[in-house]
Formats: sequence, structure tokens, C-alpha cells
Amino acid sequence: MPEPTLALDAARLLADIRALGAVGADPGGGRTRIALSDADQAGRDLLVRWMRELGLQVHIDRIGNVFGILPGSGGGDARPLMIGSHIDTVRHAGALDGCYGVLAGLAVARAYRSAGRTPRRPIAVAAFTNEEGVRYQPDMMGSLVFAGGLSLDAALATVGTDGTRLGEELARIGYAGDLAPGAIAPHAYLELHIEQGPVLEAEGLQIGVVERLQGISWQRITVHGTANHAGTTPTRLRHDAGYAACAVVAFLREQVASAAPGSTLATTGSLRLAPDLINVIPRQATFTVDLRDPDEARLQAAEQQLADFLVQLAEREGVVIETERLARFAPVVFDAGLADAIEASARRLGCTHRRMTSGAGHDAQMVARIAPAAMIFVPSQGGISHNPREHTDDAQLVLGAQVLLDVVQHHLAAD
Amino acid sequence: MPEPTLALDAARLLADIRALGAVGADPGGGRTRIALSDADQAGRDLLVRWMRELGLQVHIDRIGNVFGILPGSGGGDARPLMIGSHIDTVRHAGALDGCYGVLAGLAVARAYRSAGRTPRRPIAVAAFTNEEGVRYQPDMMGSLVFAGGLSLDAALATVGTDGTRLGEELARIGYAGDLAPGAIAPHAYLELHIEQGPVLEAEGLQIGVVERLQGISWQRITVHGTANHAGTTPTRLRHDAGYAACAVVAFLREQVASAAPGSTLATTGSLRLAPDLINVIPRQATFTVDLRDPDEARLQAAEQQLADFLVQLAEREGVVIETERLARFAPVVFDAGLADAIEASARRLGCTHRRMTSGAGHDAQMVARIAPAAMIFVPSQGGISHNPREHTDDAQLVLGAQVLLDVVQHHLAAD
Repeated sequence: MPEPTLALDAARLLADIRALGAVGADPGGGRTRIALSDADQAGRDLLVRWMRELGLQVHIDRIGNVFGILPGSGGGDARPLMIGSHIDTVRHAGALDGCYGVLAGLAVARAYRSAGRTPRRPIAVAAFTNEEGVRYQPDMMGSLVFAGGLSLDAALATVGTDGTRLGEELARIGYAGDLAPGAIAPHAYLELHIEQGPVLEAEGLQIGVVERLQGISWQRITVHGTANHAGTTPTRLRHDAGYAACAVVAFLREQVASAAPGSTLATTGSLRLAPDLINVIPRQATFTVDLRDPDEARLQAAEQQLADFLVQLAEREGVVIETERLARFAPVVFDAGLADAIEASARRLGCTHRRMTSGAGHDAQMVARIAPAAMIFVPSQGGISHNPREHTDDAQLVLGAQVLLDVVQHHLAAD
Repeated sequence: MPEPTLALDAARLLADIRALGAVGADPGGGRTRIALSDADQAGRDLLVRWMRELGLQVHIDRIGNVFGILPGSGGGDARPLMIGSHIDTVRHAGALDGCYGVLAGLAVARAYRSAGRTPRRPIAVAAFTNEEGVRYQPDMMGSLVFAGGLSLDAALATVGTDGTRLGEELARIGYAGDLAPGAIAPHAYLELHIEQGPVLEAEGLQIGVVERLQGISWQRITVHGTANHAGTTPTRLRHDAGYAACAVVAFLREQVASAAPGSTLATTGSLRLAPDLINVIPRQATFTVDLRDPDEARLQAAEQQLADFLVQLAEREGVVIETERLARFAPVVFDAGLADAIEASARRLGCTHRRMTSGAGHDAQMVARIAPAAMIFVPSQGGISHNPREHTDDAQLVLGAQVLLDVVQHHLAAD
């Protein structure tokens, strides 16, 4: 060790990204492959075909996670080095979020195949089910079930926003496998991803060594007020659900979110009023709160600030406020050894790089519950993601995959 | 003069209200007769039938206003005393808003017919088109065109929220008449209406003598921000259209609306975000602002406060804010002589009463541009309107109509 460096087929990786990105293409740009839709099935079929063409052993588990395994030479235990992410998308998505990490994993397996080399451990390329959580919540569901954080039965029974049941849709598209989730236990887990944020681009850096991931708290809040005529109801007699919701949003931004980098973020992405008429005081307001913080104590403090404000507001405005927890994940600190290995590879390949915190949730945070895990980021142009304008230059995509391949080689060599 | 008091057929009035209220009934309660819909046509057909049964001359003008005229004895000029309101409704409306005033006008005409008496002047019962403004804006459109405040061509060309053209829908339901709007010029105008507010009920009074009406300013505001990932975009780099909208709503309630009775009211009844996803910073927010004040200078000051705030907010948040004026009506002071006459009738009939300002807009404010006008209010239970729970006790409805009949008799006798 080290053996000669394996060669990444950059052209093939980029072509694969384009080909998968054409599945579920929208007329107006972008692509839509919501988890367990027909388009998701078509994307999975393409991925499985590519895995089989590379001679990988394909396994599907009972939550629909797809694994393509390149067998190892049998040194040590049989637990694979896993490289994964997801291929489901949001509506009108870019081509990179998730897909880049899965296809780069395939490129790593291809590099071994092309060189006729057998890794010391199996390499498992994983595509986890329903990372985006568009139709079925929570998001990152496939990796959460895989890591034992959500029961298979509960996941399969999930009712989607369209009234469908996840288990039925999974069977319908032919991806209800028979492998127990978690049966393929990883020795370690790597995930390569676009940053989906502005930091690397703003600092002109090529590689992000992701050593931790923010905690996430999602709630849905419903304010019940009283509908009344906008022109005849004195201000003091109002129970205005819309105003109350807006007061919460303003409070979160002005009193809870912090301007300091790496601190508390607060977002209300969805807000709906009923009856939603110009001259009627809103009877009901339903909105979401997305709080994130890399520090668990600070995240809990933000949740408490919000809870206290809701109590005061309900009292002051004479409204009833319900909160529903949609998702809650504590901050994750990734494996220090893997992060060091990523940094070493970046340095070896001459890449500019920095240690960083992931602002977005990723499958890696779930797998981190059961195996050492870490992530590699490449820049996102304008920080834009979940959007057809999501973009990373081809050269940066290739560089990220080369870093991944280098980490894998050294990891397996040093194993 | 005075001749013997005419008798109001209270049972018939209440039966008429119930019968018209059954037209366009919703499965879940309430009724929906949006202007120029099939249900509006059915309501108009019923009203016209009742007018014809009473021997009233029915005229339809080119904006679809319906007039039923009881001829006078010919004393003085031929201009009628007009009693009007509207029979179109909001979605899931009560049975009283508008309909009560029109049907009470019919009850007044019926009282003359039943007694075999001919009034000195014609009595015109009017039902104005599209008072509610649900599908076509502005609201109070029929009376606005009638009073010369909006050109007929502009009104007929109005495109609705469903993409239809008002003139085509008017013709489709058979109510595109040939009378020029305003051809039936009133000598005076009276409108009887439920208060749609809490004041009379709160003070335990039977009759409101409406001597003025608040000014109304309606705007639609659109904030253009930048959609971005909720987890990866630092607070300082956000251009959050949703937060900006909420900040405006909070500002209006906390800095512009006044807790003092009879002062500035501010309402945001409609607010929509795009893309409206939990983990995406809103790209766009569209919301409405309804400002009302009985004092024109104060109303203008409120508009200016809002405009100034929008400029600061756009600068501070790096968003673009567009405003569109949807409606603007200055406060209206009704005819003092008519208000005195209403108060005299209320006193004559032994009703408890007070002078008051209308918080809602009414056709009377449009007709006031071309004739002396005033309004009579009866209590609204809980101040609730635009809702199936809208309610006024039968005895109060009858009392209001008796006051109206008394005002008409004395007005025509004293003419």
C-alpha cells in the first residue's frame, strides 16, 4: 500500500448524472421524481440497470432502499464500506441533490471494476428511499428505518399528502424488497453531496469536509381565531389567526434567529389562512416552523423561546394555538477519523478545502447512528438547491468524486 | 297627512328571507350565490317573480341592476324614493346580508299595495349587481356604475378570478338589460341592513341610525424575494418574502391600527406564499391589506405609514415589493335630513337606537354620490357576517322593516 491510484471515469459520471436527470423531466425545466411515484420507479430502474451492468449484487430492503454491492476480497469482516445518498427529488428539482452522491458511488465501484481490482471489503452503493419527504413524512425515511430510528411498520403505514399509503405505493412500483432494513450493516459510510448553501462558493473553496450536521426541529402550528368582518370588528375585539401567525414569524426572525454564522436559523416556508378572503379576519392560520442549530442546547432554547411566545400570544390575542412536531433530529457530529481522512485526501489532491457544518439534513446523519460516517461537499452555485437552477460546475463535480475515490482507496488500504 | 299607518306583513317578509336564503344552499349550511353565477340567476329570478306578483314594473339596467317600481300618484317630479341593497352573496353566506334590505323594500311596496294606497312618488326597490366583489372586483360594482363612478364598459370588461368576463356572464344568466345605468335617478335612497358588527348588540340597542360610513382602502401587495434552502442559508443572506409579508402584517396591527373605537382598522385577510414548502425560504408572498377609517385624513395617513414601511423593508431585506390598489373609497357622510328622519321614526316606534358609523361598505355609499342617502342598521348576533352563523332575531328584523316603512311613509307624506 498504497497501490496505484484508481482512475475515475469522469465523462461517464457526468453522463450518468445527465441521464438520470432526464428521468421525470418537467416540461418547464427541472425534474420531478417524488418518492415512490412512477418517475421514481423509472429512476430506480435505471440505477439498478447500471448496477447490474457493473456486476454489482443488487439488494432491495423492505423499505425500498437499493444497494449495489461490489464484493470484497474477504479481508477482515464482511461489512461493506458504504457510499450512499438518494435519487428521489422534490418537485422541479435540480439534477444533483442526492443523485450526485449515488452516481459517484457507482463511479467508485466502476473504477475498481475497470482496473480489475477487488477491494479488501465490499463496497456498497446505496440509494435510500424518500430522503426528500415531499409526499411522505418524515424525510430521510429510508435511512432512518435502515438505522433503526423508525419501525418498518410505521414507515410502511405512513399516509401521504395525497392520501396514499407508503407501503402500497412501494409495492406498486415494485420496490418492496425482502431484505430486513439494516441487514447490510456498514463498516463506515461516506456521502458526497452538493453543499446546497453559499459557503464554499463565497469563500472560493473546492471541497467541504463535513464534520457535523445541524439539528433540525420541524413543527406545524395551527392558530384558531374567529372569522369576522374586517370593517366592523374593532381591533380590541379581534381574534385574528392571521395576525397571530405573522407575529410568530416576525418573532422567530427578529428574536430567535441569529445573524451569527453557524447559529440558530428559523424559517417559515409554508403559511396558509382560512378563509383567505380580503375582507374577513382569518379564522385559522396554519404554518410551519423550521428551526436549525448545530448546538443541541441552543436548538432546545430556541424551541423553548417559541413555546413561551405562543403561550403569551394565545393569552393576549384570545386565540387557541396547537403545535404538532413533524420532525426532530439532534445535531450530529460525524466521525472524526473519517473527516480527517477526507481532509487528507483533499490535501493530497491539491484541493482548497475547509471543515464545515451541514445546514441541510442528509441520509448520513441517520447512518451515523450505526456506523462511522462523514460527508464531502462540493460548492453549489448561488447556494441554490431544490430548484432547476441548482448548479455545480462539471470540474467541481469530478473533483468531488475524485476526493471520494481517494478516501475509499486509502480507507480500504488502511483498513 | 299623516294618513293611517301602513301595515307591514312581517310573516311574509320573514318567509321571503327564508325562501331566498334557500336558493344556492350549500350542503354544509349557508348559501353561495356569487354574482352572475347560476345561483345568482336563480335568486334574481325569484326576486323578479315576486316584484311582478306585486305588480311592480321591472327594469334591468345594462350592468344588471334590478329595479321594481311601484308607480306614484304623480305629485312632484317622477323621481322615485329608492329602497335597495343586493342579493349576491359571498361563499357560504348568511341569509340576511343584502337580501334583508331588498326584501324589506319589497315589504314596503307590499304594504302600499295591500292598503290600496298609491304613494306620492314612485317607490323603486333596487337590487344592485355584485355588491360582494367575490369573483369580480371592485365590490359594490352595480351601485358604483349606477352612480357614475365606474364606466359601464370597464365594468363589463372586468375579468374575474376564474378568468370569465363579467359582461359575458351577465348576458349568459339573462340579466344584461337595456336600461342605461342611472336612468332611474332616485329622489332619495334608503338601505336597511344588518350591522355586521358588534356595536348594537353590545349596547343592547334595536336600531342604528347610520349617519356615516368608513373610508376603505384595499391593496394587494406582492413581495419578491429569493427561494433558498432553509437549512443552509445564513440569516444575513436571506431575502425571505414570507418574513417580509409577516413583518408588514405585524406592523399594520401594532403600529397602524388603533385600539380606539371609530379609528383606523387594518386587516390582512389573504396571504399566500410560494413555493409554500416547509424547508424552502419563500420566493414570493402575496397578501391583501384592508384599511378603514371614518376620517379621510387618518385613512391617508395610514396608507402613507404603510408605504413608508414598505420602502424601508424592501431596502433592509433586499426584496422587491409591488403594490396594487384594488379599491379606494373615501369616507361617506350620509344625508343629515334622512338620518334625522330615521331617528324620528325609531323614536316614534319606541325603539332604542343610536347614531353610528358603518364599518362595512354598502351600496348606499355609492348612491350617496347622486342622491340623499342614509342607512338603518339592526343588530347582528356576535357581530358575525359573511358566515352561515350570521343571525338577527326575527323580531329585530321585523322592527327594522317597520322603521323603514315609517321613514318611507313620512318622507313621502312630507315630500
